[in-house]
Amino acid sequence: MEKKVMQTYLYDFYGDLLTEHQRNVYEAFVLDDLSLSEIAEVEGISRQGVYDLVKRCDRILEGYEQKLHLLARFLKNKEKIMRIQALSRNYQSGNEAQAMAEIEVISSEILEEL
Amino acid sequence: MEKKVMQTYLYDFYGDLLTEHQRNVYEAFVLDDLSLSEIAEVEGISRQGVYDLVKRCDRILEGYEQKLHLLARFLKNKEKIMRIQALSRNYQSGNEAQAMAEIEVISSEILEEL
Repeated sequence: MEKKVMQTYLYDFYGDLLTEHQRNVYEAFVLDDLSLSEIAEVEGISRQGVYDLVKRCDRILEGYEQKLHLLARFLKNKEKIMRIQALSRNYQSGNEAQAMAEIEVISSEILEEL
Repeated sequence: MEKKVMQTYLYDFYGDLLTEHQRNVYEAFVLDDLSLSEIAEVEGISRQGVYDLVKRCDRILEGYEQKLHLLARFLKNKEKIMRIQALSRNYQSGNEAQAMAEIEVISSEILEEL
């Protein structure tokens, strides 16, 4: 997974555990895709300060994921739900029973793991 | 939702953010359903101490949920996946297209909210 995509996911899951200042800087860098220099100017801190803060947020967010695994759990289920969506969209007439059986298996798998 | 069920869910989601001691006591009370007195004896602390610790853990776990809402998100999706599972199990022959259309809508809703 591309790094900023992973950072966006981690921020979406655990971002509210960061301080407001950390969130502002991290959002500017990861979500708004501003450069370190641009953020430094807005926040009134050094470019190195912004860099360190982003790295620190990465470590904090990754630390939560290492303990809780909620993002990993979510991504696994997301794939399964995408498979259900594809089956419901692309089944062939006459083949409904087979597609339904697969949907039943996948939905049961998701519920068992929850 | 029954209180111990909610406590079990919260513990499942955020329990690894508690200390080992907190986890031991909370698991004994919530998952193993031991009494405060029984836990007090095992842990070598007072009954009141166990009670206070369980309440403290409740507040910590609820605090994470208030910030992150990951359990609420999960429970909402769980209901939708149960609906997909029911549709895949109970559709009537000749009515497959309608059940499939509903599955498509629900799976898309889940994916949009992720």
